[in-house]
Amino acid sequence: MDDGANPIAPAEGGPLRIEATTGITGYRLRRAQLAVFQRFLAVFDSVTLRPAEYSVLVLIADNPGRKQTEIAEVLGIKRANFVTLVHGLENRDLVERLPLASDRRANALHLTQTGAAFLARIRLMHEGMEEDVVRRLGGPDARDQLFALLDRLT
Amino acid sequence: MDDGANPIAPAEGGPLRIEATTGITGYRLRRAQLAVFQRFLAVFDSVTLRPAEYSVLVLIADNPGRKQTEIAEVLGIKRANFVTLVHGLENRDLVERLPLASDRRANALHLTQTGAAFLARIRLMHEGMEEDVVRRLGGPDARDQLFALLDRLT
Repeated sequence: MDDGANPIAPAEGGPLRIEATTGITGYRLRRAQLAVFQRFLAVFDSVTLRPAEYSVLVLIADNPGRKQTEIAEVLGIKRANFVTLVHGLENRDLVERLPLASDRRANALHLTQTGAAFLARIRLMHEGMEEDVVRRLGGPDARDQLFALLDRLT
Repeated sequence: MDDGANPIAPAEGGPLRIEATTGITGYRLRRAQLAVFQRFLAVFDSVTLRPAEYSVLVLIADNPGRKQTEIAEVLGIKRANFVTLVHGLENRDLVERLPLASDRRANALHLTQTGAAFLARIRLMHEGMEEDVVRRLGGPDARDQLFALLDRLT
């Protein structure tokens, strides 16, 4: 601080110096991710669905009967958070857990009939959103380029 | 569900079908952002600093005496979350709030001497981490390309 003698800060204005902050890759990724998630939340507001819940429904639909732990691992969601998320989907009658034949201590995840119908409907909403994202990026090639760059970080 | 007659799920194995999930731009952004943040947390574990706290310290250092609300807005952090974050930094004697000369109801943010010395040290740690990120991406051009694509989403 260069105004140590004066405990009152001077009045300031004008744009902030943000170059150092916007040069942080993690910061840029976070802002872009939040922007896309906020658009998702706006689109899916009427059905009260969060992005992580959508990913879980899609993954269960494509892999019925797989272990809860497998689904959580693929998505990189911590066990405790995943259990809470699945409970929420169970309470809405979208997902059900059944004991696994090969390991009765493990739970296999399935969509319910309600869940399958719900997902069919919201997948259409999501496709519209994803098309908008690709359009903003500059087309499918730009999207592929983005995915390739992101893959180098994961 | 195609095993409605049998409440026990069949044993399954092998890799999961993840194409539909990995085609979601928000999902890919989130995974990359989490990977970078996790590396940040590992590097900054010894100084107990989170990515958002680092951004705040950098922005205050580059803009001493600016209003709390301005800093929060630039970073896109919600007011309540930002107040909590700044309190944490104040309790560690890294940041101080002073009344603004032009508007005494507003708080101006400054780094303390301790905060300035702390930031100088962790900036070096962060530079090392950022260089690693750029190397993974494939160099500065790839980083610029990534930033340009991310900007189209925000």
